[in-house]
Amino acid sequence: MSTAGPGTAPGRPAAAEAAAATLADPDTPFAVVDVAKVLRNAERLARRADRLGVTLRPHVKTAKSLPVAALLHDAAGPGPVTVSTLAEAEAFADGGHSDITYAVGIARHKLPRVIALLRRGVTLRVLLDSPAQAAFVAEAAREAGIAVPALIEIDCDGHRGGLTPGAPELPVVARVLHDAGCLDGVLTHAGESYFAYTAGERRLAAENERDSAVAAAGRLRRAGLPVNVVSVGSTPTAHAAEDLTGVTELRAGNYLFFDLVMAGLGVCDLDDLALSVTVTVIGHRPEYGWIITDGGWMALSRDRGTSAQPQDQGYGLVTDLTGRPIPGLVMTGASQEHGTLTARDGAPLPDLPVGTRLRVLPNHACATAAQHHGYHVVDGTRTTARAPEIQAYWPRVTGW
Amino acid sequence: MSTAGPGTAPGRPAAAEAAAATLADPDTPFAVVDVAKVLRNAERLARRADRLGVTLRPHVKTAKSLPVAALLHDAAGPGPVTVSTLAEAEAFADGGHSDITYAVGIARHKLPRVIALLRRGVTLRVLLDSPAQAAFVAEAAREAGIAVPALIEIDCDGHRGGLTPGAPELPVVARVLHDAGCLDGVLTHAGESYFAYTAGERRLAAENERDSAVAAAGRLRRAGLPVNVVSVGSTPTAHAAEDLTGVTELRAGNYLFFDLVMAGLGVCDLDDLALSVTVTVIGHRPEYGWIITDGGWMALSRDRGTSAQPQDQGYGLVTDLTGRPIPGLVMTGASQEHGTLTARDGAPLPDLPVGTRLRVLPNHACATAAQHHGYHVVDGTRTTARAPEIQAYWPRVTGW
Repeated sequence: MSTAGPGTAPGRPAAAEAAAATLADPDTPFAVVDVAKVLRNAERLARRADRLGVTLRPHVKTAKSLPVAALLHDAAGPGPVTVSTLAEAEAFADGGHSDITYAVGIARHKLPRVIALLRRGVTLRVLLDSPAQAAFVAEAAREAGIAVPALIEIDCDGHRGGLTPGAPELPVVARVLHDAGCLDGVLTHAGESYFAYTAGERRLAAENERDSAVAAAGRLRRAGLPVNVVSVGSTPTAHAAEDLTGVTELRAGNYLFFDLVMAGLGVCDLDDLALSVTVTVIGHRPEYGWIITDGGWMALSRDRGTSAQPQDQGYGLVTDLTGRPIPGLVMTGASQEHGTLTARDGAPLPDLPVGTRLRVLPNHACATAAQHHGYHVVDGTRTTARAPEIQAYWPRVTGW
Repeated sequence: MSTAGPGTAPGRPAAAEAAAATLADPDTPFAVVDVAKVLRNAERLARRADRLGVTLRPHVKTAKSLPVAALLHDAAGPGPVTVSTLAEAEAFADGGHSDITYAVGIARHKLPRVIALLRRGVTLRVLLDSPAQAAFVAEAAREAGIAVPALIEIDCDGHRGGLTPGAPELPVVARVLHDAGCLDGVLTHAGESYFAYTAGERRLAAENERDSAVAAAGRLRRAGLPVNVVSVGSTPTAHAAEDLTGVTELRAGNYLFFDLVMAGLGVCDLDDLALSVTVTVIGHRPEYGWIITDGGWMALSRDRGTSAQPQDQGYGLVTDLTGRPIPGLVMTGASQEHGTLTARDGAPLPDLPVGTRLRVLPNHACATAAQHHGYHVVDGTRTTARAPEIQAYWPRVTGW
């Protein structure tokens, strides 16, 4: 693994020292994060959350990196986060985060690790949507003599798990949790908003997401059950919501990096994409119109999220090493360690000799980032040279 | 990350100790390898290679695991391997392998690591297909005062890189290498055989693969250039070849684990699939016919290789914890940490309560294995209990 880069210190990196490595140095392929874009994306949603009067609880499943999370909570220290695995919860607790929501339905066998974190003083909330889960969470809490704060997952759009706000099980689940001192609130996620192609559709999805969570909370409160947390969010709805009355917190993850799927929806511009993968040209097949690189699906992932969008972006759009798009050049093929680039829309195939380094903007930041152990960090606003300087190397949390 | 399991010793694991962990113990999701199936798959191809009179050079890019490779070279110690990254080359050299082919077109900046391995006494062959690459390999070899053994990539079916056997550049590239003492042979890969759905088509693909490599080698020899290595292979053609006259070695990687893509082609049976992912049921949506698990694309990968086959297998076929298929149950949806199972072909949705553990057989073993740090190892032939015993934990090589 190539791990060039001066260090792993969190926070916005200091100016690189003389003779620092650049993106022309590490062995390819490797993941690159543009810290200036992350900060801009983070600030954009933080301002929205402030205006909407809700706490922002970023989902760290995309970057899975403490230094990236440190950019989000700069002033006040480690802040509230959402996680997708207990490995993330443990790593972020080690990094000083004490307010964590684990937003995947809980399995019984995972409760010992949950309780261990609670005993360390971390407020770790679990998620569930069935009487069976409520029963084993309540049982484990009683046995351990500790409250296990739980959120009930609400289904707002038929996307995945959750109870609908009117489901008969909802008050049953809430009562079981409440009787064990574990009921903390409700949570929903507008997963179908990833298919909302207009600002109007996304605004409606955000309203529906809010209405579903608020309706579920109201139903429980009317039954005499306390609801502290009313949590909503997805990257598309978080950027579309205009009124979050009744909601306490907003979650989003992908927005820190954004990607071609989000750009295709219109949630961001191509220029907002903060994650890319640096690759090297290793061959040409002019008879087929192919440029071959050393970045295949191992480096980009197999995610083809834009294949369902009006504009299919293949495995990614290609830029030069400074991040400037090369018009019409798309990564259209991938085997394990080979990428194939082709020109589209009548664009000429550029002359990119063997050894040329390029960057590929991915379909899905969460999936592409997951193929790497960490990020070589550059600051796109600071760079004028041909090869941007590497400011830091930021490791990722992996596994479960 | 869950790393339960008694150890990481290479070779066929000894009988587990009393009270050993079973597949019911580690936190899900995690990857499982059935060592009995690996041994059977390995022996099948080893026998073929013996009969065909060629050296078998397994591609370790699928398992990326020294203990798995140890199963292949049991008698004679660490044997010849093919790798897809220099990280693999370095790890397998550390593990005692001294005959390694790096089968991705070489980039200039990777040569220092190649030369460092050569200086350790490892025969590490590089691959190339252009005069530019031949020139920088020759230059680096002269500067280092060491031969860098190189294979010229031959294109046999228009799948990816390589020079056709009749390409005008072929003797030019070979001459540049030879003059620097670097020419070692030719290598080709019938990548299009992954779309050959009958035994007859695969046999033709194997013949074409052989003919292309032998023709390229013959052309170079007639020009007075020495060719030691004539290397061919892919999992489909390796299992179809009947006559490899003129070939010195056979490569294949996927065959150790096999997967649904290979089963869909008819190269193996479902019962040969040695890799699976253990997941836990975390919810139900009976109104949609869904069972929700904690194994999403992070655990299975985004690979949908069977989507292009006559029988689309979704993200994978579902078995019980002992590996027995559950008829009609398919993983049809995946988000990052959620899987959705549905029944097809009129099969009833089985009653699988929250907490039930299942195993999912993947589309593409290389991609699914890459999502994990290692394998919990079971022996399917030895197990009669409900939850197979874990014999060992075998780590993977990651990164580049």
